[in-house]
Amino acid sequence: MNFKLSEAIAVLERTPSTFRALLGGLTDGWIGCNEGPETFSPFDNLGHLVHGERTDWIPRARIILAQGPDRRFEPYDRFGQVRESAGKSLADLLDEFATLRAENMATLRAWSLSEEQLALEGLHPQFGAVTLRQLLATWVTHDLGHVAQTTRVMAKRYRDDVGPWRAYLPILDR
Amino acid sequence: MNFKLSEAIAVLERTPSTFRALLGGLTDGWIGCNEGPETFSPFDNLGHLVHGERTDWIPRARIILAQGPDRRFEPYDRFGQVRESAGKSLADLLDEFATLRAENMATLRAWSLSEEQLALEGLHPQFGAVTLRQLLATWVTHDLGHVAQTTRVMAKRYRDDVGPWRAYLPILDR
Repeated sequence: MNFKLSEAIAVLERTPSTFRALLGGLTDGWIGCNEGPETFSPFDNLGHLVHGERTDWIPRARIILAQGPDRRFEPYDRFGQVRESAGKSLADLLDEFATLRAENMATLRAWSLSEEQLALEGLHPQFGAVTLRQLLATWVTHDLGHVAQTTRVMAKRYRDDVGPWRAYLPILDR
Repeated sequence: MNFKLSEAIAVLERTPSTFRALLGGLTDGWIGCNEGPETFSPFDNLGHLVHGERTDWIPRARIILAQGPDRRFEPYDRFGQVRESAGKSLADLLDEFATLRAENMATLRAWSLSEEQLALEGLHPQFGAVTLRQLLATWVTHDLGHVAQTTRVMAKRYRDDVGPWRAYLPILDR
């Protein structure tokens, strides 16, 4: 096991800047491209992360920390960002993500979680018992996965343009 | 085909900031982790990109643009960043990448490439004839692929820490 709270926070607090550096100011060609119907564009990836800031990670952590009689999480709405992002620009979402993530990092830091608290459990709708440590490790991994997904979607825009180099670029066929 | 020079430059000029946002100030635990022997850590990914700035993209573009009698590219040394990175810190590499990439973007912009120039060919050691357009599209895709690889390597550090969520995080098993 590799999880350390301080290292997890270090990644989580960087993700909004990573998305801003990667996407800020790009054309709709890059922001809106996707891998086909029902797949996420870079814009959708960002909207999905914003939605998670409001509805997923910290709310679930609160359920675990409260240790009330019902520790079941709300099922996560993987397409909730469609409503979340409606009518917003990329710049709006970048700002919103930065603000919400900073608030959530302030909350997480203020908890000063102990090892005992990290071992507390909640009930995942599919998996059953999961610990707060697993939830926070998943948050980090989920962030990194969406950076990877965003860059993969963008890379595939040039799948045909690279010609024979496609054989050396495994990201184009993932 | 989706390649547009201005859009390609927009991605290429952002990559150093993306790496700085993603990695700047992180612990060695994040910077040095990898997927096993002979695989790239985040630090190695960055060193590889620095090496490419010196030896790959612009030098190959120059060979194509010159249209001399020998248009064969030097074979690319995929592990050349081992020498390139020796004794350097992450902060050194981030600065070096930003400087070299800015210089290379200035060069690329100053060329004001025409459609005719983008269609000129060089000789790849494995693939044979490739165009300047394909080379530049590959440069963009290669950057995005190394952002994706860097975040994948980092995500896998928590493969066991996420517990049952692993089933929902395909990046952990790529």
